[in-house]
Amino acid sequence: LELLGTVKVSTKAQRGPDAVIERIARCVRDAVDEADLSLKEIRGVGIGAPGAVDGDAGNVIFAPNLDWHDVALKKQLEKALGLPVFVENDGNIAALGVYVTELKSKPRHMLGIFVGTGIGGGLVVGGELYSGFGHTAGEIGHMVLEMDGPKCGCGNKGCFEALASRTAMFQRIKTAIKEGQKTLLTEMLDDLEKMRSGDLRKAFRRGDKLVEGVVEDAAQYLGVGVANLVNILNPQVVVLGGGVMEALADEMLSIIVETAKDYAMPGAMNGVEIVVSSLGDNAGITGGAVLAKRMTK
Amino acid sequence: LELLGTVKVSTKAQRGPDAVIERIARCVRDAVDEADLSLKEIRGVGIGAPGAVDGDAGNVIFAPNLDWHDVALKKQLEKALGLPVFVENDGNIAALGVYVTELKSKPRHMLGIFVGTGIGGGLVVGGELYSGFGHTAGEIGHMVLEMDGPKCGCGNKGCFEALASRTAMFQRIKTAIKEGQKTLLTEMLDDLEKMRSGDLRKAFRRGDKLVEGVVEDAAQYLGVGVANLVNILNPQVVVLGGGVMEALADEMLSIIVETAKDYAMPGAMNGVEIVVSSLGDNAGITGGAVLAKRMTK
Repeated sequence: LELLGTVKVSTKAQRGPDAVIERIARCVRDAVDEADLSLKEIRGVGIGAPGAVDGDAGNVIFAPNLDWHDVALKKQLEKALGLPVFVENDGNIAALGVYVTELKSKPRHMLGIFVGTGIGGGLVVGGELYSGFGHTAGEIGHMVLEMDGPKCGCGNKGCFEALASRTAMFQRIKTAIKEGQKTLLTEMLDDLEKMRSGDLRKAFRRGDKLVEGVVEDAAQYLGVGVANLVNILNPQVVVLGGGVMEALADEMLSIIVETAKDYAMPGAMNGVEIVVSSLGDNAGITGGAVLAKRMTK
Repeated sequence: LELLGTVKVSTKAQRGPDAVIERIARCVRDAVDEADLSLKEIRGVGIGAPGAVDGDAGNVIFAPNLDWHDVALKKQLEKALGLPVFVENDGNIAALGVYVTELKSKPRHMLGIFVGTGIGGGLVVGGELYSGFGHTAGEIGHMVLEMDGPKCGCGNKGCFEALASRTAMFQRIKTAIKEGQKTLLTEMLDDLEKMRSGDLRKAFRRGDKLVEGVVEDAAQYLGVGVANLVNILNPQVVVLGGGVMEALADEMLSIIVETAKDYAMPGAMNGVEIVVSSLGDNAGITGGAVLAKRMTK
């Protein structure tokens, strides 16, 4: 696999599924142009959706962060592009991308944890992507860790992603600012809504106490989540990826590993490697390419 | 497989591993006698241990409810009995027993949840017992559900089994009685330490409000635990077993199922069956027989 070009377009979920799918189609056309290709030269499109996906039909059953319910993503996007489209859950597809292109050792069992707007997971069992009975496995972001914890986009409380995702960190920071706590972020940004993971890294490195506390708490929750998942699954390799890990791995990794060791059952972590993906935000598109290649050959 | 005879001996964990292993050996000898057989006619012994097990060596790495650390169970028991002994985690072995002898449909992916003194889990993936990289998979009892929850035998707080096992229910009842709450259990039993799951069923059916509340709360936590695991694993069948389910399935099952549906991501529970094992407390010994048979043929 070779990365020939990328284009990034904001989701604009508030405009509704049809508009988002139009934007995805535009993004695909622009990326193909960026790669000096034409649509006629494309065999297929692989796409990761942030929620439960019915893999064969390519429908997104539910994506809380987009407020999507039963959206025929594959069908609509195929119509817009005139190309075969393959849809998987975003965590699964990112795990596939990491496993196929990044892990040279090809461990039998691998768990991918991708931390961004939400938290997605993907599981490789016996060298193959494990998607469960109805293609919905890997929804680790909605594992409840704290039953009376903060509200999650899915409607429950205390989900993993309501405690440790970028959204969760931003929410805590915004609340703290409203309560009068000081942070460099208010100087660094004219609009807090434009805050990104990289801003947290900058503020952290400049000694911002609020950001430090929020990032370290999130890293602790990530460690507890890793421990739960290692207790349940005992994979050989745990890969941490996504935009948050790309920006903040230096600040978070040692806390995640220490907390995971602290919470995991003795024995469960023996020989288990916890590594950070170097694909960063590209894990998903890499997995998308792997999926499209597999499905069209 | 045919059950020829059973014998049950209390663990007496406080006497230490050597004494417990002596008791296990006595239990095996008595069970063989009960079945009108002699030790010479036995090909092998299968055993489920409540904790992390190094399957090949047969060492129990850690069993919090016994306070065992690195106990050479296989080696010591083989010496005591003069027979080959095979050790697995108790949740794994119970899942194997249920899958092989009870589930006629042979689903590709099955999750077993066994609720007793602790909570054990066992996972069948693609028709095979999944034990992970280092044989420790399935430790679902130590999945943290409530980070500031009650203390668990493992040292953490708010583990699944600290919220929903028989031990957790008994603990809540004992605390409530100390705080002056009324319950039929104090009339029914002269020694609360001798309380069993069946006593909870009797008190529940006689309208005991305290027991009703405790059992229903535990059922809710079980439902949240099931939802977490279905979100992560999306198995085709979830089997609930163990002594607590054997005694209290009528009281707990509908709450477990409703809570699991409520907490699981939309789509994740589609077509997923939640069933109660009819093997009850015999799931473990059935799996032990399956394991010994497989390993000695």
